[in-house]
Amino acid sequence: MSEIEQLAELQRGCEEILPDGGLAKRLATGKPLKIKAGFDPTAPDLHLGHTVLINKLRQFQQFGHEVIFLIGDFTGLIGDPTGKNATRPPLSPEEIAQNAETYQQQIFKILDPEKTRIAFNSEWMNAMGSAGLVKLAASHTVARMLERDDFSKRYAAGQPIAIHEFLYPLVQGYDSVALQADVELGGTDQKFNLLVGRQLQQDAGQNPQVVMTLPLLEGLDGVQKMSKSLGNYVGITDAPDEMFGKLMSISDELMWRYFELLSFRPLPEIEMLKQRIAGGENPRDIKFELGMEIVARFHDESAATAARDTFIARFQKHAIPDDLPEVELTSEGEGVGIAHALKASGLVASTSEGFRMIKQGAVRLDSERIESRDVSIAVGSSVVLQVGRRKFARVKVSAA
Amino acid sequence: MSEIEQLAELQRGCEEILPDGGLAKRLATGKPLKIKAGFDPTAPDLHLGHTVLINKLRQFQQFGHEVIFLIGDFTGLIGDPTGKNATRPPLSPEEIAQNAETYQQQIFKILDPEKTRIAFNSEWMNAMGSAGLVKLAASHTVARMLERDDFSKRYAAGQPIAIHEFLYPLVQGYDSVALQADVELGGTDQKFNLLVGRQLQQDAGQNPQVVMTLPLLEGLDGVQKMSKSLGNYVGITDAPDEMFGKLMSISDELMWRYFELLSFRPLPEIEMLKQRIAGGENPRDIKFELGMEIVARFHDESAATAARDTFIARFQKHAIPDDLPEVELTSEGEGVGIAHALKASGLVASTSEGFRMIKQGAVRLDSERIESRDVSIAVGSSVVLQVGRRKFARVKVSAA
Repeated sequence: MSEIEQLAELQRGCEEILPDGGLAKRLATGKPLKIKAGFDPTAPDLHLGHTVLINKLRQFQQFGHEVIFLIGDFTGLIGDPTGKNATRPPLSPEEIAQNAETYQQQIFKILDPEKTRIAFNSEWMNAMGSAGLVKLAASHTVARMLERDDFSKRYAAGQPIAIHEFLYPLVQGYDSVALQADVELGGTDQKFNLLVGRQLQQDAGQNPQVVMTLPLLEGLDGVQKMSKSLGNYVGITDAPDEMFGKLMSISDELMWRYFELLSFRPLPEIEMLKQRIAGGENPRDIKFELGMEIVARFHDESAATAARDTFIARFQKHAIPDDLPEVELTSEGEGVGIAHALKASGLVASTSEGFRMIKQGAVRLDSERIESRDVSIAVGSSVVLQVGRRKFARVKVSAA
Repeated sequence: MSEIEQLAELQRGCEEILPDGGLAKRLATGKPLKIKAGFDPTAPDLHLGHTVLINKLRQFQQFGHEVIFLIGDFTGLIGDPTGKNATRPPLSPEEIAQNAETYQQQIFKILDPEKTRIAFNSEWMNAMGSAGLVKLAASHTVARMLERDDFSKRYAAGQPIAIHEFLYPLVQGYDSVALQADVELGGTDQKFNLLVGRQLQQDAGQNPQVVMTLPLLEGLDGVQKMSKSLGNYVGITDAPDEMFGKLMSISDELMWRYFELLSFRPLPEIEMLKQRIAGGENPRDIKFELGMEIVARFHDESAATAARDTFIARFQKHAIPDDLPEVELTSEGEGVGIAHALKASGLVASTSEGFRMIKQGAVRLDSERIESRDVSIAVGSSVVLQVGRRKFARVKVSAA
């Protein structure tokens, strides 16, 4: 790949790269760069949303740069000192070591272990001592810190900000000094902290790092960010069939977003896939390629092939016809209850008949048998409902 | 002394004691209390203003309590990390040890070395480590810290506050936890920090300390606080004659303030001195007693007697008459130039004659020969001007 093609790949999907032209200038030196990304040391259970950033690290690695996977164990060992945040208890060194091990098992599905340096910031943060931390705290002003979006909102709203919260961006920034990072990647919500790193490096006489922010990946619904709590995620430890099936459920539009942020195919190849659809090919077949690539990454090629075959077989077995009646429903809440959807789509005469059919095991949603009458179809989704062998309807639910 | 008399002596001269009744309650336990006062580890060169607090420590000591003279070397080792404050360079451990030595030489003129514990907060602050300091920082909120008077003013005025400045009150407060202080003394400007100590002790499950603030002593002019830079001070290493002479220059009103805050005489004795004046005794003789007490404290009894005798001899030698013409001058600035004062008081016919007399060495101010035409008489002061052997005037300068 030429330098300019490498640059295009590195810019791919990024939200922002600062300063303007900074990345090109670093690449032009021809030297291997130090690419830093920081991760919480809490129990890692990554989903595809987390991998957007890791995929970017992988690109740098492929282009010959050094990736530093930084585990922020210094703050992890402290936890939430105010004790108000039950989800952030202090972690023991053993727990952190265990979590780091789990991280490695997961990220090395994507990154090359040979070219990845795992670092822990407790190494330099503990050595810094309390006096060093005071000096670090002197590098920024209260007013500057209150400019950070979430701080300014909380301060204006009279919500408490504990003083140690002002120290964490400085710790993250100092990590860049300790590592002499050339580039730091982070989510868009990390921009302020990444820029703190630039200033601290400048104060330390270093060439300030290039800052790259990456977007939050949309979940399977295509609307909200991918998150475990929203249930719209693909976990990277999901079983092959589950992973493949979930990816098949996304819209065609979201498929291209996933290609951009999740696929390792270079941009020209993705362009060719788009042309195949323009040439009349079924988008479903292209989606198969995405699904197989992702399953192969986290399992292997044969698992990917098997997942696709299972999907097709199940699809055919349940013989969903190509031309389904389409029903558009609206919801004022978060979705439409299954029995109501069955009735509204004409598959049953009444909701009570719908409940009876569910009880008999005669109702399927996207080919999966429904076993609970409490299932609902979320706003933004498009599913195939089936009653018995022959009654089908495609149901789209939108917000009222 | 009865408990109630002890309490009266301890309350003497204090600006504020918090909480209400707290000190009486502690004393009532009958246990020896830990009395803490913190000092900067910068080169100590104490003047009488500094001794107001040390005198209060001495009282506690006399009543059987333990005095902890805390040297804040932790912050001293750091200095001003922003580098903006040239007067606060980081000190080396050797310099701090040297300064501590000098402190001891000076304070043991007042305190009993046997009953004084010298402590250094670097002992626990360095052991705390950076993680410990983060936890400490979590104990207070940004909003609460911005309530401190000087911070809120600076923040409102858009003047920078470096984040480490928020840590220093917490460090001072934590010192009280580490020392398990029962009482902390400080200047009125320290009130916020002393109260932080109370909160941190409470958080740590300790009985929060009683907070006592002491006023800033007025300088020799009786108006501005005593300070080296204003020149209105008595240094505790001043030579006996200088020390005595300076104390003789204060007003009768200020003399009683100095008795309250500087004399070790118990309150009933001071009341008796007031009655002697009411009975017709010359206030100058009472001022002699104050001057001799102070000189004896920092030198010895014989030096005090000698200083008084020298003062009287010089006074008589220059034969300042008892009934001087009095001249009241006003100044729109900080004082009145010497030549102008000579002319205005009728001692010379013109300012140029005044300058000539100065040049000839014929002019004295409070019996001291004036050698520079740039001398001026400060607003608020009352001095005796003399030209040659026989021309005298008392000159009082007030603000226009």
